[in-house]
Amino acid sequence: MNRRHITGFSNPTVKALRALREKKHRKASGRFLAEGLRLLTDARECGHVPETLVLADRRDPHPLLSALEAAVESGGGEVIETTPDILSKITGKDNPQAVAGVFAEFDTSLGALDRSRSDIWLVAQALRDPGNLGTMLRTGDAIGAGGVILIDDCADPFSVEAVRASMGAVFTQSIALARWDEFESWLRAGTGQLVAASLRDAQPYRSAPYAAPCFVMVGNESRGLPEEYEMACDLRVTIPMKGRADSLNAAVAAAVLGYEVLAALDA
Amino acid sequence: MNRRHITGFSNPTVKALRALREKKHRKASGRFLAEGLRLLTDARECGHVPETLVLADRRDPHPLLSALEAAVESGGGEVIETTPDILSKITGKDNPQAVAGVFAEFDTSLGALDRSRSDIWLVAQALRDPGNLGTMLRTGDAIGAGGVILIDDCADPFSVEAVRASMGAVFTQSIALARWDEFESWLRAGTGQLVAASLRDAQPYRSAPYAAPCFVMVGNESRGLPEEYEMACDLRVTIPMKGRADSLNAAVAAAVLGYEVLAALDA
Repeated sequence: MNRRHITGFSNPTVKALRALREKKHRKASGRFLAEGLRLLTDARECGHVPETLVLADRRDPHPLLSALEAAVESGGGEVIETTPDILSKITGKDNPQAVAGVFAEFDTSLGALDRSRSDIWLVAQALRDPGNLGTMLRTGDAIGAGGVILIDDCADPFSVEAVRASMGAVFTQSIALARWDEFESWLRAGTGQLVAASLRDAQPYRSAPYAAPCFVMVGNESRGLPEEYEMACDLRVTIPMKGRADSLNAAVAAAVLGYEVLAALDA
Repeated sequence: MNRRHITGFSNPTVKALRALREKKHRKASGRFLAEGLRLLTDARECGHVPETLVLADRRDPHPLLSALEAAVESGGGEVIETTPDILSKITGKDNPQAVAGVFAEFDTSLGALDRSRSDIWLVAQALRDPGNLGTMLRTGDAIGAGGVILIDDCADPFSVEAVRASMGAVFTQSIALARWDEFESWLRAGTGQLVAASLRDAQPYRSAPYAAPCFVMVGNESRGLPEEYEMACDLRVTIPMKGRADSLNAAVAAAVLGYEVLAALDA
């Protein structure tokens, strides 16, 4: 049985785990961190077992925790027990969950996407906030999307914040990273309707002719979508803005459009 | 003209401004901080002029900035010029906006709400994330809501994070803070339909009989709404959840329901 008890803050394994909160270390190691019994259980039930499981040494027994430990051990992974303080240091959270796991990052190439997996996909362009990105993954799961495609320079979907906000959807949604021209070539090599909220030559989002597979795209939090990307869309729609503001939060816009597409395609 | 130039980090005014990032100092002073030219311009155009305007001393001239300065000075307020470093320290942001303002907090009593102001209101119960709260304010503005009513122990709508995420909607939306029993009494003293997403005895959200004025309620990020609050609703609706997750992000749920109510009442 591969099991260790670590109590020192300066232990090299603790340092390596903490380092996974930084993107460069995630990229270098090809690993990311997820925390919480519920999230790790979701992951396990979707077939994602952590390579390393980190547990607080003072914890209440729980059948789901035992199931996780068993899955990690039978998968050849390592179980580390440590103090709540060290676990807190690893996850960067004052009140850490009693468990965290280290996972190998997934294949995020466009080529790995199975477009026939779903009638709805979300696309984010230069989305900078990891919380927004995680929320989009969570919404994608809720609307039965195939996944989220990240265009240009987006926040890292494997950051602790994005994984946390995804509430486990990082394990259920496909994730692809691509430049715009790569995405456009991939999209146009098959069937697919690209849709975005826009003020240019757009029609009301409630009665628009959505068609499957539908790719719902939202842009950067400050700048929105580049005009070129909007003009490349098959369908531009307007969402009512009754107040002073001229835009919605990016994750909110994705959800309002996503649920509209779901209703239209289900009808 | 009431204008000062401050260059010292330990200046008492700088300390007092920084302290506004903490709730206890906001409550003690009855003041809050908002930042950014666009947000402060929105505030000014809605009739909210800061008592104190803080400007970076190295800044590009801008007609909207001049308009702000003029409004503050004609309102008897103070203009403070300071270094970008100090401005950064005040707002807690690495790349601060070139301008911040100090505002008196608004009346947040239920009694101050004008229910006839709008057919849609948002209600949040024990919402803990200031970003979610700010996003709900922003969505409220977009759907033409009257405002956001905060039940039980919510994040502070006047925190820097909430104000920032509201994108100015903190100045356009009415905000009320109340305990549940206070809110229920106030609600039932007039007309109003209380609606929440629920799994209990609920009907599909797309075809539900929404009625104005409609109060759309969402619950705490982790626990959702207490059963008692759900059962007090006039209408319980279900939002499709096609994946593994059983709930949406709270601000997303408010937006999906809010836009549905808007469409139903407009039809």
